[in-house]
Amino acid sequence: MAKEKKLVEAITSMEEDFAQWYTDVVKKAELTDYTSVKGCMVIKPAGYAIWENIQSELDRRFKETGVQNVYLPMFIPESLLQMEKDHVEGFAPEVAWVTQGGMAPLQEKLCVRPTSETLFCDFYKNEIHSYRDLPKVYNQWCSVVRWEKETRPFLRSREFLWQEGHTAHATAEEAEARTVQMLNVYADFCEEFLAVPVVRGQKTEKEKFAGAEATYTIEALMHDGKALQSGTSHNFGDGFAKAFGIQYADKDNQLRHVHQTSWGMTTRMIGAIIMVHGDDSGLVLPPKVAPLQVMVIPIQMHKEGVTEKAQELQERLKKVCRVNIDVTDKSPGWKFAEQEMRGIPLRIELGPKDIEENQCVVVRRDTREKITVSLEEVEERIPVLLEQMQKEMFERAKAHRDAHIWDAHDYEEFKETAETKPGFIRGMWCGDQACEDRIKEELAVTSRCLPFHDKEQISDKCVCCGRPAHKLVYWGKAY
Amino acid sequence: MAKEKKLVEAITSMEEDFAQWYTDVVKKAELTDYTSVKGCMVIKPAGYAIWENIQSELDRRFKETGVQNVYLPMFIPESLLQMEKDHVEGFAPEVAWVTQGGMAPLQEKLCVRPTSETLFCDFYKNEIHSYRDLPKVYNQWCSVVRWEKETRPFLRSREFLWQEGHTAHATAEEAEARTVQMLNVYADFCEEFLAVPVVRGQKTEKEKFAGAEATYTIEALMHDGKALQSGTSHNFGDGFAKAFGIQYADKDNQLRHVHQTSWGMTTRMIGAIIMVHGDDSGLVLPPKVAPLQVMVIPIQMHKEGVTEKAQELQERLKKVCRVNIDVTDKSPGWKFAEQEMRGIPLRIELGPKDIEENQCVVVRRDTREKITVSLEEVEERIPVLLEQMQKEMFERAKAHRDAHIWDAHDYEEFKETAETKPGFIRGMWCGDQACEDRIKEELAVTSRCLPFHDKEQISDKCVCCGRPAHKLVYWGKAY
Repeated sequence: MAKEKKLVEAITSMEEDFAQWYTDVVKKAELTDYTSVKGCMVIKPAGYAIWENIQSELDRRFKETGVQNVYLPMFIPESLLQMEKDHVEGFAPEVAWVTQGGMAPLQEKLCVRPTSETLFCDFYKNEIHSYRDLPKVYNQWCSVVRWEKETRPFLRSREFLWQEGHTAHATAEEAEARTVQMLNVYADFCEEFLAVPVVRGQKTEKEKFAGAEATYTIEALMHDGKALQSGTSHNFGDGFAKAFGIQYADKDNQLRHVHQTSWGMTTRMIGAIIMVHGDDSGLVLPPKVAPLQVMVIPIQMHKEGVTEKAQELQERLKKVCRVNIDVTDKSPGWKFAEQEMRGIPLRIELGPKDIEENQCVVVRRDTREKITVSLEEVEERIPVLLEQMQKEMFERAKAHRDAHIWDAHDYEEFKETAETKPGFIRGMWCGDQACEDRIKEELAVTSRCLPFHDKEQISDKCVCCGRPAHKLVYWGKAY
Repeated sequence: MAKEKKLVEAITSMEEDFAQWYTDVVKKAELTDYTSVKGCMVIKPAGYAIWENIQSELDRRFKETGVQNVYLPMFIPESLLQMEKDHVEGFAPEVAWVTQGGMAPLQEKLCVRPTSETLFCDFYKNEIHSYRDLPKVYNQWCSVVRWEKETRPFLRSREFLWQEGHTAHATAEEAEARTVQMLNVYADFCEEFLAVPVVRGQKTEKEKFAGAEATYTIEALMHDGKALQSGTSHNFGDGFAKAFGIQYADKDNQLRHVHQTSWGMTTRMIGAIIMVHGDDSGLVLPPKVAPLQVMVIPIQMHKEGVTEKAQELQERLKKVCRVNIDVTDKSPGWKFAEQEMRGIPLRIELGPKDIEENQCVVVRRDTREKITVSLEEVEERIPVLLEQMQKEMFERAKAHRDAHIWDAHDYEEFKETAETKPGFIRGMWCGDQACEDRIKEELAVTSRCLPFHDKEQISDKCVCCGRPAHKLVYWGKAY
């Protein structure tokens, strides 16, 4: 009973304390656990199953665009990390160093990869000789380490799981096209699979990746109005190629440097799912990413035939969705609360009266709507309900996001918005990093992106300094 | 043309130099590459695709037995590694140590996991309170690090990919049953999916895992007569539970220690596939594990309609197998050699004459048998041919293995067999480790296992010391 109690105990309300609500959900939905290794987490079965679904769907989408998977070492020799100067400056302060192997000190210390651009360059240098060897469109699924000071489950941890794609192309145009293509793969994946709407855009010079010529990003808005950078795609031009000497002979036998890209998405997307869709009863999983989509809960199990009928129902549903049945000796109330905490999209209640009337009651996790369904029609109705729920979850998240985009025309208005209205702030920017720096310092607001699609000129003056400005920026407080 | 040449260049014959042949195949089938990180390899697309198939099939088999996947940190604090004394003695000499995180030295050094028993124990200690929390049957897919001195691609590297299952049970019987169950999952997987026959058995005290009460193993025989330990499953009893204090309250509210197991299989299985099935033309992949099962090669592509017809054939075959087509401008001879080097199970040759006669020629990679198949029947015939090839590859490997098992009755015979006849040697053993030590030292032969099924008493005397012996052991030189 101790375990039941723990699950059903009220969690902190999200309006009261969003950060605590997040921590409560992560813990009570049994997604992660703390460990003896500071800043690192255990991803428990309920959390890892979400990651497995993310992986398999994203991997499928990658492969449709010609991506091949590989695996590179987790260690980077110090000399290799130092080959590209912006890159090493960006990452060296936050890496973990291996200095001893076996019983002996290492001759050269190795960092545990924080990202693998330098390793891929070292690899491509040997692999690429001719235009025939291009393009290379490789990806790896692995964990990386960044020695963060403050950590939170999924959002920021010293070790996290991700995929990192690294490509090499003959021309600048091809590299740019691949950079945009992968950002769109991420955006479509987020919107279609996770029901998380995103803004697609470009990072400013200040916010771009260490060593990149351009960084593209998708930015999602969490329920509390904070932004979450959800996937990035970088165009490196030929900067790394020059630093590492990655050249190919073109058709005229001229040596040229390759153009490269990289792009990544991480376990932090599980954090996005929680903070976009969750509510005061716990997790709410979009049906497509939910490891378990339907929980059958028999009511009055002691009555003859109820359990059998419920099991029969589960068996039938196995063909059309991911379904389980709860036949433990807990009360229906406990079972409902558990199913809600875990975010299982639909529950099916089936009691003696329902059986008499040849029906069951389906309850949607997101709206709590109760739908009576004839037992003859469950196989058709459940997939339709799951699809409808997926679609409506996206629309609701989008409406919430759109209702939290504010325009600011001068610093006064910008400041007031930042202090009182959670969400994205649209504001013009002159392009001077000094303005970005001031906004970050004074208001803890950062430039999220220069959007691709929404290029409306809401004013002709910089929201910070008042000088002429042509660039629309989405600003926000971010995780 | 440079690339073609590299592929088709003759490789070292396996009879001449098996080790060099292995290195050549790994390189020319483009499975791995060397890196700037000593002892670590890049697994290239052709190699990683094999691992993906191994993963997905093994994971499916695990889940059928109730396994759930999780992810634990890659770091182990020194104090945690030291909790179980046999375990730390076994692993401490070969771990890599992180001593610096970010810009500061760590207060306590962290080893990069060589295996995760200690982390799982630390996790289970917090997760397990009551008999209701049992069993825990968790697994993780990850990489591990062991600071080996001599390394070879797939067989022994400083970092390798694997899965490690870790379970906790209420009783010793249940733990023992799970240990055996997982060994059988491995054995069936090897035989059914990789077409690699294995001997199932128990390791001696000397060869068992550091900290285990019993280690079960599957041992495969490579083409050169050397053994390869291919998967192990360990029963820890309650040793780790006592060291870590993992207790549960039973139904009578008595505190009891859990009983634990662990089991792992690694990327070294790719080495096993190479060394069991390969030949002097390169890799030979069993159809089930082959990323690509069929390569269509059009002959006389310049003739009208040939390429189109071949593409049409490929399209039709996509529904029944993993198929590709080679329409590059290389000669058919080059294409054949490439397909053979890469171990693609079947190639289909289709030229103008074949088209006239409404047929194609299917060539099996293993036997080189040429089979003429009517174009109307390819969808039915190809899957049958793949299945037949899978079956015959297993039978051939088993016949080769069985033809390389020798009996030895005394030390003289044992020594001569070890020196002249590659393969397993069956010999009785008194149970004294001194005999194992002597055999290892003098003959470089180790006890592979005490077999589960083959318990024939081929003599009543120890093959080493001549004292009374009741234990049959499979001995061998091993990778």
